[in-house]
Parts: sequence; structure tokens; C-alpha cells
Amino acid sequence: MADTDELVNQVMGKLLNKANAGTTVDTKPTQSGLTEFVGTAPVGDTIGMVIANVDSGLSENLHLQKQFRSLGILSARTGGGPQIMSMDEAVKATNTQVVSIQMPRDTKGGAGHGSLIIVGGDDVSDVRRAIEVALAAVPTHFGDVYNSPAGHLELQYTARASEAAHFAFNAPIGKAYGLIAGAPAGIGVVMGDTALKAANVDVLSFASPAYGTSFSNEGILHISGDSGAVRQAVIAAREVGLDLLGTLAGKPKNDFPSYI
Amino acid sequence: MADTDELVNQVMGKLLNKANAGTTVDTKPTQSGLTEFVGTAPVGDTIGMVIANVDSGLSENLHLQKQFRSLGILSARTGGGPQIMSMDEAVKATNTQVVSIQMPRDTKGGAGHGSLIIVGGDDVSDVRRAIEVALAAVPTHFGDVYNSPAGHLELQYTARASEAAHFAFNAPIGKAYGLIAGAPAGIGVVMGDTALKAANVDVLSFASPAYGTSFSNEGILHISGDSGAVRQAVIAAREVGLDLLGTLAGKPKNDFPSYI
Amino acid sequence: MADTDELVNQVMGKLLNKANAGTTVDTKPTQSGLTEFVGTAPVGDTIGMVIANVDSGLSENLHLQKQFRSLGILSARTGGGPQIMSMDEAVKATNTQVVSIQMPRDTKGGAGHGSLIIVGGDDVSDVRRAIEVALAAVPTHFGDVYNSPAGHLELQYTARASEAAHFAFNAPIGKAYGLIAGAPAGIGVVMGDTALKAANVDVLSFASPAYGTSFSNEGILHISGDSGAVRQAVIAAREVGLDLLGTLAGKPKNDFPSYI
Repeated sequence: MADTDELVNQVMGKLLNKANAGTTVDTKPTQSGLTEFVGTAPVGDTIGMVIANVDSGLSENLHLQKQFRSLGILSARTGGGPQIMSMDEAVKATNTQVVSIQMPRDTKGGAGHGSLIIVGGDDVSDVRRAIEVALAAVPTHFGDVYNSPAGHLELQYTARASEAAHFAFNAPIGKAYGLIAGAPAGIGVVMGDTALKAANVDVLSFASPAYGTSFSNEGILHISGDSGAVRQAVIAAREVGLDLLGTLAGKPKNDFPSYI
Repeated sequence: MADTDELVNQVMGKLLNKANAGTTVDTKPTQSGLTEFVGTAPVGDTIGMVIANVDSGLSENLHLQKQFRSLGILSARTGGGPQIMSMDEAVKATNTQVVSIQMPRDTKGGAGHGSLIIVGGDDVSDVRRAIEVALAAVPTHFGDVYNSPAGHLELQYTARASEAAHFAFNAPIGKAYGLIAGAPAGIGVVMGDTALKAANVDVLSFASPAYGTSFSNEGILHISGDSGAVRQAVIAAREVGLDLLGTLAGKPKNDFPSYI
Repeated sequence: MADTDELVNQVMGKLLNKANAGTTVDTKPTQSGLTEFVGTAPVGDTIGMVIANVDSGLSENLHLQKQFRSLGILSARTGGGPQIMSMDEAVKATNTQVVSIQMPRDTKGGAGHGSLIIVGGDDVSDVRRAIEVALAAVPTHFGDVYNSPAGHLELQYTARASEAAHFAFNAPIGKAYGLIAGAPAGIGVVMGDTALKAANVDVLSFASPAYGTSFSNEGILHISGDSGAVRQAVIAAREVGLDLLGTLAGKPKNDFPSYI
């Protein structure tokens, strides 16, 4: 029986690790020869695709901010902020424009969002390049996502916000922007209070289950301002969030190196 | 230790299969002697019930399209499309009317919807018959639901849409109707583009996390038109969807035989 | 192989029990020395916190009904009703006021809600006391939450509703109030019908996936009236709910003693 218990614990430990990582238990991806397929990121079930010449009947029904011939698509089960910040870099680096950002209530049983981000361009090579850049940046932007069995924290920071952060979170373009999120949502409230007391920054908004989220269980402060101050506020909030979330089910862990 | 690893893998494989099927891990249902109970379907935690003579205080608060003496109820944790298309057959075959279709954000940690469908009738034997017909049709309509650990695809097709497809998806009654869904949502966008390029059909709408879903992580194209064209569009989209979803976490599988 | 099967079943049974309890698989909480931390409840990943002197930039963005110097926060992954009813007791017992109740679509893959409840007070000792009282009451209010792998039931009852039940569910203050919920949602419809036929009570509202929930898969009847009648209606609905939910995946179980 001792042996059995040990096995049971091993299996549960392994399952837990998989669940914490926000990744799937099974990972034997197949290959794709489709011209629409660009690639995947190794976290969040994130897939990148392009449509070279979108069908007009579809395009008119996609609720896009502007019509384009070519579309680039970044779609994920787990992660809103990481993919949006990754696309923020990608649109800076390419001749493309953000035309839709939607955040499903997902994370595969977790407390947060997935994402559907669409960019447009006149040439398929531009939107393909944007999706490639975004996919490559996704792991970095999961660097300050910390998971525990009870919830998660997410911190994002950029010294110079671009189109995607503006589209999704109303971040002023060209200014420093920070995202501070905690789940369950109340932890995000205390993190937000800590951030605003730690540095002199501007509040863009505070999102919570009934306001500005898709009913996710997150409290999310969006801030802007001087780059040093925004970074300082984000770092102060992270410390408090790690402490509070840890009281529920052990120390939260990130799957990629912290970048902030 | 090799033995242990094998056991761990066996358990995880078994759990994964269960999770993929969208069914519950434990299955020792109890019996019910209640007159309200009609039966269950073997997938999606789907239950069918009737109320012979509904309490007026309840009925007035149910947001029904029309008041009836007898109500039939089809309710599921996993599956919107399959249950709606099953009810579409049932109302064709019985003297009942669809009075409510609601789609919770559910699927037990998956990317899609559950369902709550209510039909009304003047006689409890009519609504009971409708629920029986719908329950029997549910497995068929899961035939083109394909699951992987990363997401799912759903395809539905009918040569002649009826009341339920009209109520839920605005399908023209009496015409062919097709549903093309992919999760994560971006896969549904590419599937939709493929479908519209494969055959000459009419777009009814495209649903996505922020438009026409309950924040599910799905892209869903609803089409109508000539029955051969609708079927051809659905089949073309299915191939592309299987390919794309497979790049994330292996080949998606259906739990019941494909019917399209 | 018989031995292996047994092990597999043991692991799955253990996992299932954990899942049913709505608690986390891993439970090695860390300590917190933060003045903001009040404590946790042993169910639902429920955490209680206070902010002694909230930052005005945050407070203005929290969508609070009224501004206060000190805030108390009760936040959970699993459970809306239990935490709201616990806070209902807490505001009766302390000099505090409910300023926000939000219900994320959560329960960690289950069919229901989590919760974010904020109370305000002029003194941090008052809001701290409210959170302590609420945390202590949470297990009691999980006493009539019954889980199975297919869904859950929730029953709540108070002889004298106070501010939290009024804020969240429009319960008349000072009168008896009852909550009757079933998931999947159709079970809640039949439970509601049973309740209203069992006793003479007033319907406050019926919430369902598209009306009055955050797209949860629940049917929820809110009732008010004479205390004996409300209690009788709740008890009658519980019996029917246990029977119906049991037909899907075995007998539903509560993790704490029934209190109604």
C-alpha cells in the first residue's frame, strides 16, 4: 500500500505540474503543409496562421476595425496579456495593423483569458512576418506569469507601448505601459493598491470580473507613465501578489525566465 | 522505476481520453423515479426532463418566447451545436415549439459551450416525446465533434433546418444549414475562409469570443444555401481544421461516427 | 494488469474526490506577514484581505457603490452563494457596508461562479473583523453544496436576509431568503418548479446561463417570504435535485455538514 500511495502521489504530482504550466498533457503535434499555417508557440496552445486573400463574405462578418486583403491570426487557449504584448512588438516591427483583439474566457479551467488577435496587411509576407515575430516573443511574455493550483499572477511591462496594447488596453502609444493582474480577483485589487503607492503612475483602468474582463476571475490594473515609475510599480505589485497567492496553495511558479 | 513510469503514463492516457471525450471520469449513474425525468444521453452530461404543468411564477421568470402548460428541457455541460441540432430534429417530429435556447460558457474546462434548451407544448406527452427524440439524436450530432488536448472542431449539417437552428443561429427554415467551428478561435477563422472558398453558400454570421458566443474560445461560421454546396463547404473546412488543430497537441478524435 | 487497473482506479478516484471538493490538488500554503492578509477559508480557494487606506486612484476605478477609506475583500475561485451568504452574516455583525459583489465565471472547470466581494468601512479594524467573520462562516455555507462529476447543486437559506443578499440577489432586507441552484442548468429549472409547488413563497428572480449569471451553467431560483415556507421550498428542491443530478454520474456529495 505504501508503494501504491507513492505511485498515486507521483501521478498526481506529474498531472499537477502539467496543469500548472498551463500546457496540455499530451504533446505529439502533427505537421502541417497548409500555406495558412505559420507555427506554434511552446506555451498556452498558441497557434499562428495567415490568410493571403481573405474571402470578402468572411471578412465583412469578422468585426474588424478595418478591411485588409491579408490577415494574420494569433490564437491561444491560455493567455491574453502575453500574446497581446507579443503582438505589440510584432506590429512595431512590421508593416501591419491590429484589426481585432478578443479575449475568450478560457485558460482550460484556469482563472483567466485566452486570446484571438487579428492583424491586417496589404501583403501576405508582411502579416506572416508579424505572426512569426509574435510567436517568437510569446515565451518571453510568459516570463512573469506565475501559476499555482489556486490561481495566477501576470505582470507585463513595456517602455514604449504600441498598437496592440493601445487597442486592447487603451495604453497611450509611445509611453511606458504596465499590466498588473492577480487571480483570484481580490489579489489583483491588493496588488493594484500596492503598485499605486509604490510609484507615481497614471491609472488607465482597473478590470475585474464584471468590468472589462470576459467574466475572468482576475483583478487587473492598467498603468501608464514614466518608464522607471511604471516598472517600479509592477515590481512592487509582483512581490505582494506572490506572497498573497502563496497563502492558498503554495508558491506560484513561472515557466519561463522573468523579464521585468 | 520503468514500471512506475509506465503506470503513470497509463493513468494519464486514461484520464486524457476521458477528458477528450468531454465526458465524466466517474460513471455510476443512479436511477430516478421522478415523473420529471426522461433520460440522459451518453455524452456531454446531457439530461432530458419534462414539467407537465409548470408553475406560473416560475414560467414568468424563465424568459420564454411563449408561455406553455408543459415544458421539455434538454440540458448539457458539454455541447451547444449537437444538442441544438438534435432538438431541431425533435421539433420537426413532434407537436412542440422551441421557447428558449441558452448557451453557458462550459464544456468542463474545454473551449466551448454547454446548452439549455426548452420546448413548450400543450400536452406533456408531446414534450416528453420531443425530449426522447432529441436525446436519441445527440450521439449522432457528436459525430463530427473532434477533440484534442488543445481544443476542438465541430461540424454540423442539415439539408432542411427547422425551428431550433432558426432560433439559435438564425438559419432559414426549410433550407440547408451548416455550422463550422474551431477552437482555439483562430482555427475557426481559417476554417471559415476555406469553407467559403470551397462552395457558393450564404454567410449567416461569424461568431467569435466577443461576438455571438458566451465568451467561448471558438470561431464559428454559420452558412445556408443549396444543400450540396453547404455540405461541400463543411467538408472542406473539416479537413483544414483537423490539420491545424493537430499541430498543437496531436490528431483530434471524434467519439462517435462522422455523419457528414 | 489487474493490479494496474486497480491503481489506475485508485488514482482516478483520488483525483475525482479532489475535483469534487472544488479544492486544489496541492495544499502547502505559505505564510504571509503582510498587514493586508487576513486569512483563508478551507474551501473554494477563498482568501480574505484588507486595505487600511485605499489609494484614491484605485478606489475611483473599482466601480464601488460608495467610497470608503478602508476596504475588506473576500475573493474565491469556487463559490458565489456561499461567500455572499457568509458576508451577509458578517455585515450584520460589524460596522461595514457592501460596496461591490462580482461573480466571475469560474469554479476551476466546474459549472458555476467564483466571487469577489468588497465591503467598506471607516476603520480598518471594522473591515478586518467583517472579513474574519465571513471567512469563518464559509464552510457552513458550503454545507448544502453538493458536487458530482457531472455538476452541482447549491441551497442557501437565511431567516433574515441582510445587505449582501440584497446587493447580489435583490433579497428584501429582514425577510427570509432562499437560493435554489442546479447545474447543468435544466436541473435548476425542475428544482425551481418543485420549490414553488411545495410552499407559498415569492419569486424574486430566476437566473440562467443567459439571464442574471456570468454565463454559468446553472438554473438559480431566488425566493423570499415566510421563513417556514422558504425553508420548506428549499428542502423540497434539494431532494429533487439530488435525484436528477445523480442520474448523470452518481450521487452528489457535500464536503461540509448540511445546515438547512
